Amino acid sequence: MMMAMSPPASLENGLESFLAEAIRLGRDTMRAGEGGPFGALIVRKGEVLARGWNQVTSRNDPTAHAEMVAIREACRRVGDFRLAGCTLYVSCEPCPMCLAACYWAGIERIVYAADRQDAARIGFADAVIYEEVRLPPPARKIVMEQAGREAALAVFTEWEGMAEKVLY
Amino acid sequence: MMMAMSPPASLENGLESFLAEAIRLGRDTMRAGEGGPFGALIVRKGEVLARGWNQVTSRNDPTAHAEMVAIREACRRVGDFRLAGCTLYVSCEPCPMCLAACYWAGIERIVYAADRQDAARIGFADAVIYEEVRLPPPARKIVMEQAGREAALAVFTEWEGMAEKVLY
Repeated sequence: MMMAMSPPASLENGLESFLAEAIRLGRDTMRAGEGGPFGALIVRKGEVLARGWNQVTSRNDPTAHAEMVAIREACRRVGDFRLAGCTLYVSCEPCPMCLAACYWAGIERIVYAADRQDAARIGFADAVIYEEVRLPPPARKIVMEQAGREAALAVFTEWEGMAEKVLY
Repeated sequence: MMMAMSPPASLENGLESFLAEAIRLGRDTMRAGEGGPFGALIVRKGEVLARGWNQVTSRNDPTAHAEMVAIREACRRVGDFRLAGCTLYVSCEPCPMCLAACYWAGIERIVYAADRQDAARIGFADAVIYEEVRLPPPARKIVMEQAGREAALAVFTEWEGMAEKVLY
């Protein structure tokens, strides 16, 4: 007897169309020469707040990954540095830069299509950077040195004592 | 007999002044209400290419960490998405977002003052985010789901076959 297969839960309830749009956006902007084959949408309560696509090479901005562009645009649109209640739909698993940006922005859910190994197979460094980030600083390929800590801590102490600061 | 103490190697050769400037920049912009107590310089062959300071709360941009602002400005200035031969001087260890951005930008050396634990002690999430980034996606606090991989891979295959793309 054959079992009827139900679709994966993550493809139900409109997920598929947002994710499909992110993938198409990456494809179309790649074809237009904007950058790598990556697209992203920020969605809140079924509304698309922002769209982003890779523009690293066309804008000479190594931080202009699809997710970063979308996060910055969504924040501009809502006038807040937090994106509570938002989902990121993205054509590929976010690299550590974009993933950490999601934490800073308070994004609650990420739906991604390809993953870091798929990106590695077409020449992108995402998987390598994930390995580097987890290493202790002295073990990384980038030379890292710590110095002058006491001077920085004096500023941190001043920050702690400020009454009117905005926390993030 | 007392031993004469030599200064730490990382404080020699001009490092101290660039790092001190990064720390002062973070302090002064914190006092001006721009954001958290963080400053950064990008330096190449003794020349300051760019300065950055935290502007998350003043610009409603969760990606506007000191390092990110400095990297973007340095790239604008040199007209390239790579910062070969550059050193980042920064008042605190870069968070995973900023560290990964350094890899994407090809920065070769990072000199930092305070570290992720110091940042944690004044309320910043850097250390928590380092722990999250190293986890497998399903284990993270942000809900992560993978779907639609085949559709994304079709675009990746098209990228691989493109003759005129700019790699990064």
